[in-house]
Order: sequence, then structure tokens, then C-alpha cells
Amino acid sequence: MTQNPHPLGQSIIDRAEALARFSDMEGGLTCAFLTPAHRSAQALLAQWMEEAGMQVRIDAIGNVIGRYAADAGADARVLMTGSHFDTVRNGGRYDGRLGILLPIAVVGALNASGIRLPYHLEIVGFAEEEGLRFKTSFLASSVLAGRFDAALLARTDADGVTLAEALAASGLPGHGELAALQAAAVDPATLLGFVEVHIEQGPVLLNKDLPLGVVTQIAGSSRFQVRIEGQASHAGTTPMGMRRDAAAGTAEMILLVESRCSAVPALVGTVGQLLVPDGSSNVIPAACTFSMDIRAGEDDIREAAIADIVAGIQQIAARRGLSAQVDRIKPVFNAPCARWLMDQFSAVLRKRGLAAFELPSGAGHDAMMMQRITDVAMLFVRCGNGGISHNPLETITAEDAQLAAEVFVDFLRHFQPEG
Amino acid sequence: MTQNPHPLGQSIIDRAEALARFSDMEGGLTCAFLTPAHRSAQALLAQWMEEAGMQVRIDAIGNVIGRYAADAGADARVLMTGSHFDTVRNGGRYDGRLGILLPIAVVGALNASGIRLPYHLEIVGFAEEEGLRFKTSFLASSVLAGRFDAALLARTDADGVTLAEALAASGLPGHGELAALQAAAVDPATLLGFVEVHIEQGPVLLNKDLPLGVVTQIAGSSRFQVRIEGQASHAGTTPMGMRRDAAAGTAEMILLVESRCSAVPALVGTVGQLLVPDGSSNVIPAACTFSMDIRAGEDDIREAAIADIVAGIQQIAARRGLSAQVDRIKPVFNAPCARWLMDQFSAVLRKRGLAAFELPSGAGHDAMMMQRITDVAMLFVRCGNGGISHNPLETITAEDAQLAAEVFVDFLRHFQPEG
Repeated sequence: MTQNPHPLGQSIIDRAEALARFSDMEGGLTCAFLTPAHRSAQALLAQWMEEAGMQVRIDAIGNVIGRYAADAGADARVLMTGSHFDTVRNGGRYDGRLGILLPIAVVGALNASGIRLPYHLEIVGFAEEEGLRFKTSFLASSVLAGRFDAALLARTDADGVTLAEALAASGLPGHGELAALQAAAVDPATLLGFVEVHIEQGPVLLNKDLPLGVVTQIAGSSRFQVRIEGQASHAGTTPMGMRRDAAAGTAEMILLVESRCSAVPALVGTVGQLLVPDGSSNVIPAACTFSMDIRAGEDDIREAAIADIVAGIQQIAARRGLSAQVDRIKPVFNAPCARWLMDQFSAVLRKRGLAAFELPSGAGHDAMMMQRITDVAMLFVRCGNGGISHNPLETITAEDAQLAAEVFVDFLRHFQPEG
Repeated sequence: MTQNPHPLGQSIIDRAEALARFSDMEGGLTCAFLTPAHRSAQALLAQWMEEAGMQVRIDAIGNVIGRYAADAGADARVLMTGSHFDTVRNGGRYDGRLGILLPIAVVGALNASGIRLPYHLEIVGFAEEEGLRFKTSFLASSVLAGRFDAALLARTDADGVTLAEALAASGLPGHGELAALQAAAVDPATLLGFVEVHIEQGPVLLNKDLPLGVVTQIAGSSRFQVRIEGQASHAGTTPMGMRRDAAAGTAEMILLVESRCSAVPALVGTVGQLLVPDGSSNVIPAACTFSMDIRAGEDDIREAAIADIVAGIQQIAARRGLSAQVDRIKPVFNAPCARWLMDQFSAVLRKRGLAAFELPSGAGHDAMMMQRITDVAMLFVRCGNGGISHNPLETITAEDAQLAAEVFVDFLRHFQPEG
């Protein structure tokens, strides 16, 4: 019998595959907040945490939290790690989930070897980060960070179910009561920090031929929902010059987002949702709706782009006799990683002869919200297939997963609290 | 008691309002083929035809056909009139329906006065013209004209119900059997012609301060369904230059349709349906679908525009690393109206001191399909509210409806077969 050269890496990949079998869709992975697939994934994560030797609790928003108790007694402080297990629609199986499955594999190995840590290690499977169902992201980490926005309880999904109703029907502790969601917040004074392992979701490590990287900061993002209104009219009888076509105006706005964001290297802008509501092929669109997501490594660059784009949208609308309603969804500001935590990851990488390569994260992560209450760091794992993510083609190798798990073991064993 | 100055006109408007109460939606008028609202409208039209003194039949596609029998005996030929009673989504109450309600009012008045005609007058309430439910227009007139495309029986609606299934479940004669649909064709040899009264759906008569106009031809149209495919990827981590964004490519294509069609006065082009399927705000669109409707008074102008636009779509797709699938839905060629029929309408208008104003129709009409088997003419009625149509604001005045009804009475009473 040949020994598996990547036992932890392969188990992570196998478990990502097993977890991906719970899906809201056929033929792909969609795991939206509190769907049956989501509840099944939550239960399986809890089971794996228990098997790895952890005490598991599920909180009021559905986070699965496993504690690998300190050998130093119950009053030890907590180093927290984790990521989310919800997905985008037809997403990848590592986005978020790697940051839960890798620590579980690591704890399982430590526990099997009888190695305990001088602090409590908690692994959080965050129940909601992507914002798919209720169009709000960081729902789960906002509860843990004590930053839950009570107004979100009235937010509805595509079927008109409110978040409050979904939580009440879920059987989760607290049944969606605001007090229970507030009580689920962690006390920052108990925390040593928060570290998150995540697939890079981009091509930088791949292009540099590096398996791992240390994140310097998480780029802020601003999201908007835009509604353009014009006037419905007959497609055959209304001359081109007399039209107030909401879709044609929107087309101009999409190209504005693209051109403005292409002008600055660190800037990206995306129209990911686009719809003429109730469109008919022979009716000039009376309305068109779209989402707009704008990100940059620096808040200044992002805000300058937003100002230009919003002004441009209003100009295009005015010129075409359209109205534009631009609703800003709460912006997320840049979250810098803590140098002292980054340095401990870098030291482990160097000790193993690897480059301590540093890179920013263009994507948002749960660490971004946790940074509001504690110091954070992130370890990125190389993304295969050209760096593609939010896509079924997203992938990592067992070798990289093994290496990341070993680096994480070293990090945990040599972890020193700040100061 | 004051006498109503527009008795026929007011009854037409009242009945359009009554008919509009049957709707597939709340707060607006949508009447799609074979929905409960559609069946109720069909039944009410049949009742009104009977009350007006007509013999009524309903054919295999759901057309309501009332015959005001000739005084000249059963072997007389048939002058046919009518229009459709289905609507676009959130449409107007006169589009199509005026061309059924006006002749019913006229026949009711003739019948009440004991006036019979030397030919059979048949009023057809066409069951489907707009193409809303099965994305195919002229369904009802194609059956009557013996031009039904058997392949359409497999076409599905948004719920996956095929046309064959919908017809089988409808209780209509023939239950959707192809043979029954073919047998519902009218024998062209029995026809004297087809005339259609219709709201203009544009601003020409309104701007010329004329209540009525005689249509010279019905503009051909070409419809397409386009699917653009790119690659889903993360909105935060994929640099602008590495994207294959289906929505951004589509935006460029929409502006191409607009600019190319704006370059020629008689040409119009519309993207009425537009969607990023399953879009998420933080995912670069992997796909975008849209409809394209291109019309012109002359086939050559339309075909030249189509060639340029389709080539342009492929160029944009190639430049952006996208694929473009452009499916052409059967084109409709220009349908000229018959001079001899137009002249009889013009003669009536002049006799009443009205301008015999001639104009082309940019919109398609049932007369377009009927023109394949008989000579056709159309009488346009002025459209209020700036000429808006396919919109709840579509309107006519009781005065114009009265005038149109009186002109139609004169036309029928003085009608002379060709030659």
C-alpha cells in the first residue's frame, strides 16, 4: 500500500467535494442562506468538527463554531479562524469552504497526535457571506462582530420571505429575535485575533508560481442597485429619436463603468445583475435595473471612481430623458491586515524555504468584518485554472492544500499573542 | 335626458374598459394566450357578437368569429374584418381590441336598424397576435390563413408548457391536433377581402390633427433572440483587462442597434428583453440574453441593417472573447394594402369632408398575415397621449371612435367587390 503523499490536502479536497453535493441547483453548486442544502452543509460541518475533537455550537445566525479547547484552562483567550460555507450561484467548492475544512483537518491531526494548544482555537463556519439570498453580504460575520444591522430583518428574498421569517422558521436558537442576534456577538476582549485561509480567487500566485501568499489588506467595495426608468412604447411605431429607452441608456452606463474602471490598474467595476423587468421583444423598455460593484485597493481611488460614475449615470439619464435611481448599499472600507500576524505567517513560510509573498485581496472576506473587532490576517492558497473563481472551474491541488495545512499547523504551534 | 353625442364611440370605449378587467396581472392589462383572463375575454366577445345579431363560432386556435349573414343568401362571399384580443404585458386596451369592438358596435347598430348587407360580414377576434406567451406572433391569423407552422406546437411558454399541451388542455375544438388547426383555415376563394380597424400606436395622426388615416402598407419586421456567452469570474479579483464579460459586450451591441437604426429615418431597432441569467452582483456575467426587433418600411433597408448589426455583434463578441448565438425568428415581409380597398375608405372620408390621409404602419397587424391570402386594407384611428401604445396610457377619444364607426358603416354599406 502506497502512503498518500498529501493526506491532509486530499482529505480537504474530498470533503469539499462531499460538501458540494448539497446544492440548491442541479448540475452545479449553489448554497444560499438557510436553504435545505445550506442546513445539510451546516450539519455536516458540525459533525466533522466533533469528529476532529471540538466542542460545537450553532449560533443565532447559523454559524457553526467548533472549539478546540486550550490545555491552559477555560479562561484562556481565543484565536479564531474560519470562513463562510454559503456560495454564489453556480459557484466554486473552495471559496470560503477551504477556510473551514483546512483548520478542521489540522485540528483533527493535532488531536490525533495528542497535541493541544495554549489558547482556545475556534473554527467558525460562517453561514452567510456572499449576499445571494437577501442581497446583503457579511450577514454571519456581522452578527459575530456585534455589527448586525437590525433593519436587515425586514429585507426580503426573491420569494418575498423576510430575513426575520426565514430565521424564525429555521429552528436556529433565538428564532430570529433581534436580542438573540445581538447576544451572539463575541466579546472582543476574549480574542487573540482572527486568521482566515482562503483560495486566492485570482491569478496572481499562479502567475508567480507560488503556492501560498500572505494578504496585506482586503480591498473595500461599494455596491449599488440602479433603476433606470424611461417610457414603454411600441417598438415598431416609435421613431428612434422619440424614444426614452431604459435599456439603451443602461447600455451606455455599463460601458461607462467599464471604461472608467479600466483607466486605473487597481480599480475594478462590475455590472453583475441586469434585467429589463417584464420585457417584451416588441416594447421599448420602460425600466432597466442593474447592480454595480466597484472596488479598489485604496478607498480614495474607489470613491473618486464612484463619484465619476454616478455623475455620468445622471448625465446619461438626463440626456436621454430617463430617470436614474442609484441606491448605495452599505460600503465596505479597506481592511488592513495586522503586521504582527502577517509576520508570523511569513516566518513559517520562510522556515520552509518558501517566499513570504505579500499581496492584497481584491475580494471581500469574513476577515474584513472581523477586523472591526480584532486584528486579522489571511493566508491565500493558489487558485488553478487561470485563477478563476465564482465558477464551477475554481480549483486547487491536493499538494497546495497539504502545504497550506502544514503551514497552518506550524503557525498555530508557534503562535505568539501580540506584544 | 341629454342624448349621448357619441353613442357608438362611447359604447366601444365602455366595452374596451369592461374587457380590460380580465387581466393576468393586478393593476394593469396583460392578456396572454389561453390564460383564464384570455378565455374570459373570448367568452365576452362571443356574447357581444351574439347580442349584435351574429352567428358565432370559436375555432381550433381560439379565434372568436361572428358572422352577420348576407341578405343575398348562404352562398354569398365574405368580407372579413377583425383584430386581436390578446395583449402585450401591461399593455393598452385599444391595441387590437378596437378592431373587434368597433365592428361589433357597427353590426349591432345595423341589425337594430334592420339593415343587412349583400355579403357575409365576418368579425374575427384573433386569439393571439402579440407573441407574449409562446414568443411567436400572428399565431391566430396564421391558422386562419392556412399558414400555421406545425413546429410551433412544441414551442414552450415560461413554465415549460408546450403550445400543443396548452391547446389540448384548453377545451378548444380539435384539442391542439395539427389536423384541426389546418382545417380551421379559411378558403381564400370565399373572401372578398380583409379590412382592419386599429389604433395608430404612433403620433402621426395626432401631430397632423387628423382623426383617421388610411394605411398604405404594413412594415416588415425581423426578430432575433441573441445569447452572448463569456466567463463567470470574481468581480473583485479579476482585472478589467482579463474579463470576458457577457453584459459589457451586450451593452456595446445594444448601442450598435441604436446607432445603426438611428442612421436611417424609416428604420427602427429595439432591444426589448434583456437579462443576465442568474446574475449576482459580485460575479462577472457568464451570459447575457436579449431580443432584437428590427423594422423598416422597405425590406431592403431592413435587411441591410440586419446584415450590419449581426456582423457587428460577431465582431464585438470576437474582440471581447465572447461567443454570440444569434437566432432569427421568422421574418415578416412588408405587406402592401390593396389600392382598391384603400380607395373605398378614402372615398368615405372625403364624402364626410375629412382628409384621406395615407400613412404606413410601423407595427405589425393581423392584416399582414391575412394579406397572404386576400387583399387587405386598414383604417387607423388617432392615438392620444402623444401616440403612446403598448402602455397603459394608450387611449382614444369617444369622438374619434364614433367617427371611425360611422366611416366603417359607410364603408360597409357602399362596399364594392374588386373589378
